Amino acid sequence: MAEKGWASAVTSIAPNEIRVRGYRLEELMGRVSFGEAVYLVLRGELPGAAVGSLMEAMLVASIDHGVTPPSTLSVRNAATTGAPLNACIAAGALAVNRHHGGAVEDCMRLLARGAARVQAGESAGAVAQALMAEEKTAGRRLPGFGHRIHTDDPRSHRLLVLARQAGAAGPSVAVAEAIVAALAASGKPLPLNVDGAIAAVLADLGFAPELANGFFILARTAGWIAQVAEELGREKPMRRIDQQACTYDGPAPRELPSR
Amino acid sequence: MAEKGWASAVTSIAPNEIRVRGYRLEELMGRVSFGEAVYLVLRGELPGAAVGSLMEAMLVASIDHGVTPPSTLSVRNAATTGAPLNACIAAGALAVNRHHGGAVEDCMRLLARGAARVQAGESAGAVAQALMAEEKTAGRRLPGFGHRIHTDDPRSHRLLVLARQAGAAGPSVAVAEAIVAALAASGKPLPLNVDGAIAAVLADLGFAPELANGFFILARTAGWIAQVAEELGREKPMRRIDQQACTYDGPAPRELPSR
Amino acid sequence: MAEKGWASAVTSIAPNEIRVRGYRLEELMGRVSFGEAVYLVLRGELPGAAVGSLMEAMLVASIDHGVTPPSTLSVRNAATTGAPLNACIAAGALAVNRHHGGAVEDCMRLLARGAARVQAGESAGAVAQALMAEEKTAGRRLPGFGHRIHTDDPRSHRLLVLARQAGAAGPSVAVAEAIVAALAASGKPLPLNVDGAIAAVLADLGFAPELANGFFILARTAGWIAQVAEELGREKPMRRIDQQACTYDGPAPRELPSR
Amino acid sequence: MAEKGWASAVTSIAPNEIRVRGYRLEELMGRVSFGEAVYLVLRGELPGAAVGSLMEAMLVASIDHGVTPPSTLSVRNAATTGAPLNACIAAGALAVNRHHGGAVEDCMRLLARGAARVQAGESAGAVAQALMAEEKTAGRRLPGFGHRIHTDDPRSHRLLVLARQAGAAGPSVAVAEAIVAALAASGKPLPLNVDGAIAAVLADLGFAPELANGFFILARTAGWIAQVAEELGREKPMRRIDQQACTYDGPAPRELPSR
Repeated sequence: MAEKGWASAVTSIAPNEIRVRGYRLEELMGRVSFGEAVYLVLRGELPGAAVGSLMEAMLVASIDHGVTPPSTLSVRNAATTGAPLNACIAAGALAVNRHHGGAVEDCMRLLARGAARVQAGESAGAVAQALMAEEKTAGRRLPGFGHRIHTDDPRSHRLLVLARQAGAAGPSVAVAEAIVAALAASGKPLPLNVDGAIAAVLADLGFAPELANGFFILARTAGWIAQVAEELGREKPMRRIDQQACTYDGPAPRELPSR
Repeated sequence: MAEKGWASAVTSIAPNEIRVRGYRLEELMGRVSFGEAVYLVLRGELPGAAVGSLMEAMLVASIDHGVTPPSTLSVRNAATTGAPLNACIAAGALAVNRHHGGAVEDCMRLLARGAARVQAGESAGAVAQALMAEEKTAGRRLPGFGHRIHTDDPRSHRLLVLARQAGAAGPSVAVAEAIVAALAASGKPLPLNVDGAIAAVLADLGFAPELANGFFILARTAGWIAQVAEELGREKPMRRIDQQACTYDGPAPRELPSR
Repeated sequence: MAEKGWASAVTSIAPNEIRVRGYRLEELMGRVSFGEAVYLVLRGELPGAAVGSLMEAMLVASIDHGVTPPSTLSVRNAATTGAPLNACIAAGALAVNRHHGGAVEDCMRLLARGAARVQAGESAGAVAQALMAEEKTAGRRLPGFGHRIHTDDPRSHRLLVLARQAGAAGPSVAVAEAIVAALAASGKPLPLNVDGAIAAVLADLGFAPELANGFFILARTAGWIAQVAEELGREKPMRRIDQQACTYDGPAPRELPSR
Repeated sequence: MAEKGWASAVTSIAPNEIRVRGYRLEELMGRVSFGEAVYLVLRGELPGAAVGSLMEAMLVASIDHGVTPPSTLSVRNAATTGAPLNACIAAGALAVNRHHGGAVEDCMRLLARGAARVQAGESAGAVAQALMAEEKTAGRRLPGFGHRIHTDDPRSHRLLVLARQAGAAGPSVAVAEAIVAALAASGKPLPLNVDGAIAAVLADLGFAPELANGFFILARTAGWIAQVAEELGREKPMRRIDQQACTYDGPAPRELPSR
């Protein structure tokens, strides 16, 4: 019953020497961005600089969405009972599932089906029509399209522009855009939401759909920390948290300084 | 008993308009790094570019440490039972506490005590001696110093160099380095570990100690995702995970290409 | 670096033989109640039958409290995002902290201070006055007293009656009751809530305060499962859960049949 | 976007009146066992006394299994990092999944398929053969049969005896026993493990398979609390927990006193 040996290819640890995928960690520090390091640890190789920037943009896109997402409510609710920060984050992660955040994974699977057909020669438009029909027949909603607040998700537009600039927009992005066009033509327009846009880009970058959920959690953890800090700093313990009663009182709208 | 109104200053959400601390999220995408966005969401303002790079370097420093940390064992152990990725990440976060990861928070509190005295005119060396004596009297170990594997933590050296380059090394870094010197002079040398180095830099950047735990979880989530992917890709379910039996079989040591 | 041996006194496992605290598990099944088994696994010995019944009564007292507690909201909120049942339960456990559920532990510590003085000869009434003054001076609320819904908690009365019947009411119960009397006399009456009553009984039974939190989670897990089953059976995914909008539509009030 | 009303049939809360499924909670305390209360909260009605005892026996059967299960390792591992008790329990729950604990749910689904055929007139033996063939064709292991330590699980035998005494053994138990017999006849004997026995009894009691996972977590929480107490009481923080190095040093084997 003795455990036989096993191996890991992620990180090697020796006294005073930590190597992630073969690179000394201290050499990576200050030389590669966090987005590049995330790509490296997940994929095994460093991305080009353009893809590294795209990774960062996707992380930035997911960093926070105010107090309405159920995961953020879980985080706030744990905080108001006195949970330590790590337990609040864990509670947030536990509320990222099929119906919240999970659309990235489902959408990646959908687009992968479409991308395979595009690569086999079909037009993106025809594939979009086929996928929509298949999902309708199966009684499934299209994952990654539509948003309960946004009729046109500004994060998605921006991400696809960046993906094109990075040379990373491939057949999954094409299928995603063709679905948006087909939905508009059908008279039932739905936007590509940020889950769908990230799904398209991650798919074209070759990421496995199984990791998508984690990518969202990774980025959103930063927002959750801010939400916990605010809950502890501004509110009393054991309050009933009604998201509908929340107003915004932060900095007024402002432009990003040129830099 | 009706819930009275409350407010949040983090993110404003309106149809098709998401603003984090006043900035349109889509404008941040591609223009600020994730490290800058993390600073923004936590602190309310964008950092200068040098501090943004330092944020990224701290995130990179914490991205993974192989299979030995208890949090990573929790993640692997959850994965082998069939837990979905988000539950594996939550299990990892739940294993980041006082004795693992939590040293950042404790060290920030220690260094804050020291920094206040340095700013009041005492020398860093005298303060270091005083803090060490106080902790010894209280029967506490010095948080952020010593490592069960590394006698000299390469991440710490690199981070302090980067902090100096960014002009961000202040009294907390000075006290941390004075403690290292005093420990060496005492004949019981202990390195500043990565927790301690991050603590010193976060403290000098003005972060609240309460957030430190979350900062580590944020970065390490990337490593945990890689560990889960590897567990699912290479191992059978319900195995007994013996970290001592793990060898590294990833890429051979390699140099970061100049870029 | 090899792990040295360690030992556990809880359960011995050999092929086809499972012994909890020395007893064959299959012999316990059907012969001892779950309350007795909980006492056994936590304390190392079987309780008398009266104490066993009291354990069961405490578990029953904590089994559910409708949809208002923050832990139950966490459970429901996780369920609506599509979390599996075990993740919903974990989310519930993560919302049991100092400000919710945690009063049992704090109250046990308070009553332990009082019980020690009663056993040293002071009257329960004098001790109650002293504890109240100490807590007021320290700026702390009295844990285990008061409830945001109940002005007189029916569970507490019943539990203290059962504790007396079981011969298990000792100095902690006496102090708890003396505090209730002193609060009433002070013109600011507060009931002993169920947390406080369980704290008093657990303290007089000799349980460690550190376990109290777990005792509550153990019992409430049953309620959480029922809440998840109902959420999945009756509601749509990704709804906004507003506890204030919830009405009860279960069985009408009914009497327990004599049995 | 206002939340419309919703309803719960589990527990009604009014000032000083808590009713679970219509019964005053304080009347249930001391009059019904915890097993009966669990049945009530989950099913909406009180069970007969015999079924109540059976519920208790199933909870007792699952209360602990030493330090080897991955969920218990998660609990211990969280504890050694300094996690509070509720986080340790949450970590345990997160390690109860398809490959550990989850066999109850899968086995319930398997036995439900078989029970339907038995009720339609087929013999249990024929159904067992058919199910085994179907699972083999599908490349699935039989959930609820076999154990990595026990070749004959004493908990299963006892539980089926108790189920018969309670008049609660129905077609699911019959199919489970027929599978054991068919496995023995096939020359590849596998025991019905405790997951399988509980699955058979829960199925014959009419429980939904979706709840099975929670039932196990409910009972095992008691064991996890004991494991945490022992970890904190006997071990140092941040140790490497090697289950293979653990020996038992609790009470010697002993007989349950007649009572």
